[in-house]
Amino acid sequence: MKAAVIHAPHDLRIDDIAPAVMGPGDVTVRVRVGGICGSDLHYFHHGGFGTIRIREAMILGHEIAGTVESVGANVTNVKPGDTVAVNPSLPCGHCRYCLAGQSHHCLDMRFYGSAMRFPHVQGGFREVLVCDASQAIPTSMAPDRAAFAEPLSVCLHAARQAGPLLGARVLITGAGPIGALCAMVARHAGAREIIATDLLDGPLAVMKRVAADEVFNTRENPTALEKYQADKGTFDVAFECSGAGPALVAALAVVRPGATIVQVGLGGDVTLPMNTVVAKEINLRGTFRFHEEFAWAVRFLETGALDVAPLLTEIVPLADAVRAFELATDRAKAMKVQLAF
Amino acid sequence: MKAAVIHAPHDLRIDDIAPAVMGPGDVTVRVRVGGICGSDLHYFHHGGFGTIRIREAMILGHEIAGTVESVGANVTNVKPGDTVAVNPSLPCGHCRYCLAGQSHHCLDMRFYGSAMRFPHVQGGFREVLVCDASQAIPTSMAPDRAAFAEPLSVCLHAARQAGPLLGARVLITGAGPIGALCAMVARHAGAREIIATDLLDGPLAVMKRVAADEVFNTRENPTALEKYQADKGTFDVAFECSGAGPALVAALAVVRPGATIVQVGLGGDVTLPMNTVVAKEINLRGTFRFHEEFAWAVRFLETGALDVAPLLTEIVPLADAVRAFELATDRAKAMKVQLAF
Amino acid sequence: MKAAVIHAPHDLRIDDIAPAVMGPGDVTVRVRVGGICGSDLHYFHHGGFGTIRIREAMILGHEIAGTVESVGANVTNVKPGDTVAVNPSLPCGHCRYCLAGQSHHCLDMRFYGSAMRFPHVQGGFREVLVCDASQAIPTSMAPDRAAFAEPLSVCLHAARQAGPLLGARVLITGAGPIGALCAMVARHAGAREIIATDLLDGPLAVMKRVAADEVFNTRENPTALEKYQADKGTFDVAFECSGAGPALVAALAVVRPGATIVQVGLGGDVTLPMNTVVAKEINLRGTFRFHEEFAWAVRFLETGALDVAPLLTEIVPLADAVRAFELATDRAKAMKVQLAF
Amino acid sequence: MKAAVIHAPHDLRIDDIAPAVMGPGDVTVRVRVGGICGSDLHYFHHGGFGTIRIREAMILGHEIAGTVESVGANVTNVKPGDTVAVNPSLPCGHCRYCLAGQSHHCLDMRFYGSAMRFPHVQGGFREVLVCDASQAIPTSMAPDRAAFAEPLSVCLHAARQAGPLLGARVLITGAGPIGALCAMVARHAGAREIIATDLLDGPLAVMKRVAADEVFNTRENPTALEKYQADKGTFDVAFECSGAGPALVAALAVVRPGATIVQVGLGGDVTLPMNTVVAKEINLRGTFRFHEEFAWAVRFLETGALDVAPLLTEIVPLADAVRAFELATDRAKAMKVQLAF
Repeated sequence: MKAAVIHAPHDLRIDDIAPAVMGPGDVTVRVRVGGICGSDLHYFHHGGFGTIRIREAMILGHEIAGTVESVGANVTNVKPGDTVAVNPSLPCGHCRYCLAGQSHHCLDMRFYGSAMRFPHVQGGFREVLVCDASQAIPTSMAPDRAAFAEPLSVCLHAARQAGPLLGARVLITGAGPIGALCAMVARHAGAREIIATDLLDGPLAVMKRVAADEVFNTRENPTALEKYQADKGTFDVAFECSGAGPALVAALAVVRPGATIVQVGLGGDVTLPMNTVVAKEINLRGTFRFHEEFAWAVRFLETGALDVAPLLTEIVPLADAVRAFELATDRAKAMKVQLAF
Repeated sequence: MKAAVIHAPHDLRIDDIAPAVMGPGDVTVRVRVGGICGSDLHYFHHGGFGTIRIREAMILGHEIAGTVESVGANVTNVKPGDTVAVNPSLPCGHCRYCLAGQSHHCLDMRFYGSAMRFPHVQGGFREVLVCDASQAIPTSMAPDRAAFAEPLSVCLHAARQAGPLLGARVLITGAGPIGALCAMVARHAGAREIIATDLLDGPLAVMKRVAADEVFNTRENPTALEKYQADKGTFDVAFECSGAGPALVAALAVVRPGATIVQVGLGGDVTLPMNTVVAKEINLRGTFRFHEEFAWAVRFLETGALDVAPLLTEIVPLADAVRAFELATDRAKAMKVQLAF
Repeated sequence: MKAAVIHAPHDLRIDDIAPAVMGPGDVTVRVRVGGICGSDLHYFHHGGFGTIRIREAMILGHEIAGTVESVGANVTNVKPGDTVAVNPSLPCGHCRYCLAGQSHHCLDMRFYGSAMRFPHVQGGFREVLVCDASQAIPTSMAPDRAAFAEPLSVCLHAARQAGPLLGARVLITGAGPIGALCAMVARHAGAREIIATDLLDGPLAVMKRVAADEVFNTRENPTALEKYQADKGTFDVAFECSGAGPALVAALAVVRPGATIVQVGLGGDVTLPMNTVVAKEINLRGTFRFHEEFAWAVRFLETGALDVAPLLTEIVPLADAVRAFELATDRAKAMKVQLAF
Repeated sequence: MKAAVIHAPHDLRIDDIAPAVMGPGDVTVRVRVGGICGSDLHYFHHGGFGTIRIREAMILGHEIAGTVESVGANVTNVKPGDTVAVNPSLPCGHCRYCLAGQSHHCLDMRFYGSAMRFPHVQGGFREVLVCDASQAIPTSMAPDRAAFAEPLSVCLHAARQAGPLLGARVLITGAGPIGALCAMVARHAGAREIIATDLLDGPLAVMKRVAADEVFNTRENPTALEKYQADKGTFDVAFECSGAGPALVAALAVVRPGATIVQVGLGGDVTLPMNTVVAKEINLRGTFRFHEEFAWAVRFLETGALDVAPLLTEIVPLADAVRAFELATDRAKAMKVQLAF
């Protein structure tokens, strides 16, 4: 069968791979679609991010949905023919973090398409995937929508780091797919006002359409946020989704004392005015992946509580994977790009 | 009467100043002792810190205790002869922060010996001080102990930013007076284990004596904390009291996922590995001054629940103020230095 | 001018009253509509509730909206002609609760149409009302919708007692106006599933329409909730809106360990199985009135984020006030009844 | 070997029982002492509590400490000769509560000396006990002190339900061993003021000695707490340790709005003025057993941070178990009674 395999920066190939063997607790899924994520793009362009680099060929992909083809003898939660959203996380279930309700910090996590451990955990951009039954979440919605469950989970988890959002005034910096989903989640969680910034008009237009009350292009209008600095700041919560240092520094200036800034985007080292963090008693928190939020995401998508259709730019056949990755890289044109298998 | 007035960096003078007039809600306090704080030292050496600089001569000092000399007609909480700890904060009482229980973020705060507003708020290093009755907290302890109420308040407030400390494993970086008081407060709040670091042995010895289970000189032994990195990290809470970037970066590496780091020390810009903040979901919070903790501090000192005697290096007569400031600057020799009036 | 005045149980009269005098910080409002609340009904039927009884004639009403007629010299937030929702709370602004961000516990609160203090605070069911400018919140919506701001505020405040609702499974017991608004708020705050119970089908049908996934008539089907007891319980949060003891006892049985039950409804003494509270570590909290949530309510109603139209049963002219109160009492027929002035 | 076995109310026998078999992950402990707990007394006097009754003979006891005699092949945490505190809880490790960091709510919990499941889980009042290695916590202190780890764990867990106690004003109702340990924990966690009540002077005298600032005999002086009702109430936190309804009702009256009352004591049904819970927005929470607090308890006892010596009334030989149970029942004379094996 075919899979999208990264061999080196800009060396993405459609390789033939051997099928996996299904155990009694496993499910065989015919993959229908797979969304391209920012980390897939980092592997594609740079071979990794931060200190993590690919050291062997690795199948990419962790935003996967498909149809159950067959199930192992012990599987009861899904049956052949079911559409499933595939949770890319497989925690060990017995380390100190798993037993503390924090399995996303599992000391022996297997997460699809990640080079964090070696041998790497192969990803889901392949025609057929064998996963643990716990990873297959049945759903009544179409696979192209179900494939949004993973990035939506990330944003639901991020929202929980912010505490209650009911009534909150929220800033979102970075209007890519994660920024847009964070804005939608903030709206869904009862935020009173949502303001978004980016350096490009394209994503901001989508942001305006799906969730934001007002958007600002801070490249064209660098002082747009100044009015929010009055009386020591305005926003109760900020989601920093760009991974860019200047966006975080800008957020520090416009949140109110005691506000929470959730750092969602990955970037690298950032130089922060710590005296502002101190004087305004800012609460700066990281957010990493997700846990029970995957099931919530499936439900919220299924019921239409969150409508992600405006975020889907194009579904590209696997054969054109390189074009799909290039399209996904062009933030002016693309929000979410999916591969079809 | 005499006061310790900063005119420019390294130009600290004992000036004669005019007495203040007491209103009906005021209290006249004969100042007995005043502790020299890190911010006093910043004014002394650099004329300020961050973007704040003295623009006119300013009396320093905000860790003040003394004896009530007389009281205005409306004053009921203290009477002549009472020993009082003086709270250096006078919030406006009606801005949005005052009405939200966050008067330490008051939009019109008057805080002794601070150049944050202009004209500057003159400080408490003077023979006689007229303050609002709400600032005078009566106490049965001696003034040299009562003058610790202010820095202890800062540390009690910092501890509250960390959430419950009962059972926590705590790291303290920076073993000056604030680090030592944070360690004592952490112990007082039920921390299970307290580890402290500094670049000098002198303050670490005091730290060991007053609260820490173990101390590390990270200049002499730069890899001392490495063992605490196991399994993604050890400490539930860290108090960064040095204001030094490398200490904060070191703390990020050894706290567990989901830990809280409270930034207490003021320094300036710090370059942070934000990917660590994200991947470990670290909660980095600032803490600024204090609020109702001042009354708590007076009580904890008075009952002996916290014994600050080991932190008092020397009480120096006002006439030798310059020597006192120089001694307070020498971290190898001095913990807390007080002026006597 | 005319006002709806309660003199004794079942003695509600339309009296002529003298107009109030407007001070420089006041606003004169021509009242358009006033919603009848459960506490108004308690005064009407019983002359009070709990230990509180009317001891003099009292104008009822605290869910008020109208049009600004004139403003005092110092008023800047509204102008003649503005539609306003009127916040019935006027806290003192300087007691310990006001300065702690808890002005709804103000030691000297003036709340319209309440017999908690004597002389009673006269209410808003009158043709013209003079209120403090801080109580008049301008809005672009019609008065009949704006008059929902008060009960919605109560429910927003109740929701905050529950902590974050994003992803929560929620039980609502009692499907009157407050139950329905709590359900709508829970949905608005991202609840994953909402189940409601009542003893009557009429309110449950409205509940189903506005927010609930499933509703149960527990008079007709007393074992309907049993399935939710599996594995020590299901619901993360319950809002007890009936004020009836059996509903609270039923909720204890079906919430999960560690769940929060918010008691919203007022009833009286309730006999609770405290061993269940202990063994399941249940968090049972009261909620009382509201604070900054009034401004949120106005915004959520104005933007249509919450659509209360299905809750409005009838708008009755002031002259028919007694019929309006009788209609509002009939839970099988009425949800919210408003008086028109 | 000998064990203290309850056969029916007031039918406690010293029976000969067969030794258990040790598996590769088990530890054989020669029991030295076992503390008599309130639930042991309930079994002794009433054959159970609430809906739980003994349905077969059951060895009592779950406050156990002893010496390791031998260990299974896979055991690494302890070795023969070690003194150990024995954690009476053995959760399943894979149910939804175990994986959520709430193993004390495990759906398949095995807890020593408990009739909650059938066959009952036999207890620790026996000469030799075979337990899972995870239950054996090595310690350097003497067994009679180590046997306090279990009740202290309960109180540490209770304290965590109250949120941060630093600076809090705390009320303890009920001055038995659990009340006394809660008071000690509150002090250890930084409470500012601790007031205790009981109906007997004996336990109150101990309470005063170990932790309380002031104690009141509310049988002799029923209005003693009235002064704490001023301004809507005084205490930030209350621990209700008596299990008596009137104590809980009294606490409701004297805590401040927004306070937390932790129900620790088991009693039965209590009639509560829910309107007070509502109007004061009281947070009433149950607390049940403990989790990671057992390890904390061992450490706090070992380091002497908490000195439980004043709570130990007498150590009685196993042969005199009936006398020991009768002594433990007499609250006027006994605080904690231990059996020696």
